[in-house]
Amino acid sequence: MRYELYYWPGIPGRGEFVRLALEEAGADYVDVGNDDAAGGVAAVQALLDAADVQRPPFAPPFLKAGNVVVAQVANILQFLGPRLKLVARDPAAALWTQQLQLTIADAVAEAHDVHHPVGLGEYYEHQKPEARRRAKEFRGERMPKFLGYFERVLAANPKGPKYLVGARLSYADLSLFQLIAGLRHAFPAAMRRLEPGLPHCRALAVHVSERPNVAAYLASDRCLPFGEEGIFRHYPELDD
Amino acid sequence: MRYELYYWPGIPGRGEFVRLALEEAGADYVDVGNDDAAGGVAAVQALLDAADVQRPPFAPPFLKAGNVVVAQVANILQFLGPRLKLVARDPAAALWTQQLQLTIADAVAEAHDVHHPVGLGEYYEHQKPEARRRAKEFRGERMPKFLGYFERVLAANPKGPKYLVGARLSYADLSLFQLIAGLRHAFPAAMRRLEPGLPHCRALAVHVSERPNVAAYLASDRCLPFGEEGIFRHYPELDD
Repeated sequence: MRYELYYWPGIPGRGEFVRLALEEAGADYVDVGNDDAAGGVAAVQALLDAADVQRPPFAPPFLKAGNVVVAQVANILQFLGPRLKLVARDPAAALWTQQLQLTIADAVAEAHDVHHPVGLGEYYEHQKPEARRRAKEFRGERMPKFLGYFERVLAANPKGPKYLVGARLSYADLSLFQLIAGLRHAFPAAMRRLEPGLPHCRALAVHVSERPNVAAYLASDRCLPFGEEGIFRHYPELDD
Repeated sequence: MRYELYYWPGIPGRGEFVRLALEEAGADYVDVGNDDAAGGVAAVQALLDAADVQRPPFAPPFLKAGNVVVAQVANILQFLGPRLKLVARDPAAALWTQQLQLTIADAVAEAHDVHHPVGLGEYYEHQKPEARRRAKEFRGERMPKFLGYFERVLAANPKGPKYLVGARLSYADLSLFQLIAGLRHAFPAAMRRLEPGLPHCRALAVHVSERPNVAAYLASDRCLPFGEEGIFRHYPELDD
């Protein structure tokens, strides 16, 4: 099965949560938005605009797998999980993995809203004072709450604190790795303050980055750096 | 099976999406937060704070079903779907139902952020100018985009525009009903402007409200009215 990932080009963004799963599993996939030979951004937009799609996505990312088109990061990962062996077979464990993924998605959405609190479609430059106010609460209240929660989940795993669920890597671990990487990029000073209290999260970020397929991906030019676009943006005035 | 719903008392909030599914199915459940005999809000807080929960929820609502504790609205509904016969058996249709649910969840989160754009933990009164700015974009761009999307999904259903998925009611229909009800409460003027272009959404809101179990629930004192707390709030200055 050759998977087709549709996402905006040039940024890791929400597409990265899907890319990490595909890369870790060594899946055959094409990153359509970043691959002009596959159609590039025009192909992403065309599928979004197509009038004849029976189950149209609301927004990228979405994944094509044969006849299936799946959207929403958590839903894409839920679909890929069993196929890429990135989720437990036990239904209760799979449900719990998805629950964690949805909580990661909430944290990601809030990290984005920090720099776009009053106008999703407006420039950051037009909402800087508002962003500063939102960032203060995010760093002071929300980041500790979300990260402290994942730390607690890791600590409470009866199989040990290495993974979020059971004794094997799941897509939620890959996504938590990406959330931590994004927060380190966007809020390095706040993370320096918080990380001493998050030993299990820190260990997870290390061991995920060292998995052979993930490490090879991170070193490749398929892996796009964080920048001044997308979800995780480093504006020094929004950090501690 | 007696289900236990854990949610903050006194508001429909995110708990309502779960209540509607339980009520439509005629399920045996207790609304713990609103039921002092069942423990009330103290029981909700106790389960959130419990140190010995192996799979702790991040936030309400969560559902107890025997030994299972499930959180995140979309995940709760995914769990309940097959049990309450509120989702198709076909895996592709179930995936699509969940995708729609997650898009409804995104719309709900944005509707909430309108009145709390710069401080989730602060009072609305301390962020009124910012809320007005965010509301303008929400009414002008986001509401038409989300509702237009669901209208398009209904129109594209090969089984006809009555339901979002196939020829039977799913939990996503119940949630879309609740989203429309919430937006009508919060933004009545904006909805009067938009609804002429949303005939399928309007029809869905009617036929869901007329289902015997839903109608009985809406008329009961179990169904809490929208108010000045929770997700959908009517502040006239934020409407058209």
